[in-house]
Amino acid sequence: MQGTYDQENIFAKILREEAPCVKVYENDNALAFMDVMPQTDGHVLVIPKEPAETIYDLSEDASLACMRAVQIVGKAIEQAMGVGGSTVFQLNGKAAGQTVPHFHFHVLPGSLLGLKGHASEMADPQTLMDIAEKIKSFID
Amino acid sequence: MQGTYDQENIFAKILREEAPCVKVYENDNALAFMDVMPQTDGHVLVIPKEPAETIYDLSEDASLACMRAVQIVGKAIEQAMGVGGSTVFQLNGKAAGQTVPHFHFHVLPGSLLGLKGHASEMADPQTLMDIAEKIKSFID
Repeated sequence: MQGTYDQENIFAKILREEAPCVKVYENDNALAFMDVMPQTDGHVLVIPKEPAETIYDLSEDASLACMRAVQIVGKAIEQAMGVGGSTVFQLNGKAAGQTVPHFHFHVLPGSLLGLKGHASEMADPQTLMDIAEKIKSFID
Repeated sequence: MQGTYDQENIFAKILREEAPCVKVYENDNALAFMDVMPQTDGHVLVIPKEPAETIYDLSEDASLACMRAVQIVGKAIEQAMGVGGSTVFQLNGKAAGQTVPHFHFHVLPGSLLGLKGHASEMADPQTLMDIAEKIKSFID
């Protein structure tokens, strides 16, 4: 799909620093930041730095970097939000409900049950920054 | 968590071939098989062969093997079920609704919306085998 990858999608802009994000964690091949339309408090997105639209486009390096980022961030989310569990999900293609055409793992504290709809409501920026600081305090 | 890993969980038994499964795909470090309580037709589980309870226990080799398996199986599920999208999710800990204490990615055709509850109803074995054959026909 890299031939059809949309360089103007919002995550591509975040990676080029043309759009802002509330960053939580970064490694050589992946970036983690707060979802601006959280389905619950502590909702983080993990994306590869390469232009991959779905999981089927991810290189091995990006797969591993994203998994490593989910491990680091997910454990920190559990600790920051005081929940003894976490959920990871990701959607491939419009038929699955994917809204931004750049691969992303959703990482959330607790369960899928009772979540708000996907991409339904903007969060208050200050709240996002406060939660991000709390999550970051549990990384390294 | 490997110190507390439950060697008698059903996926450990499947890996030791003490319990059956309808296999879809296998590589050196991961196994994919039909969920016996599917939330939709074409619901496959991908598990590491190592004793990891959650994503936080996965080695790099197992992370990569599971991601590779999801890529191969997920694309085949989309083709077999005739759906142009797929969803991947995984639950860590009882607080997230994890029912079997061995890491597993759920891979499903289409969207999370409208799914049956997690682990709610046993599928007919013949139906599972028929769907598995169809998925396998798209893996070479």
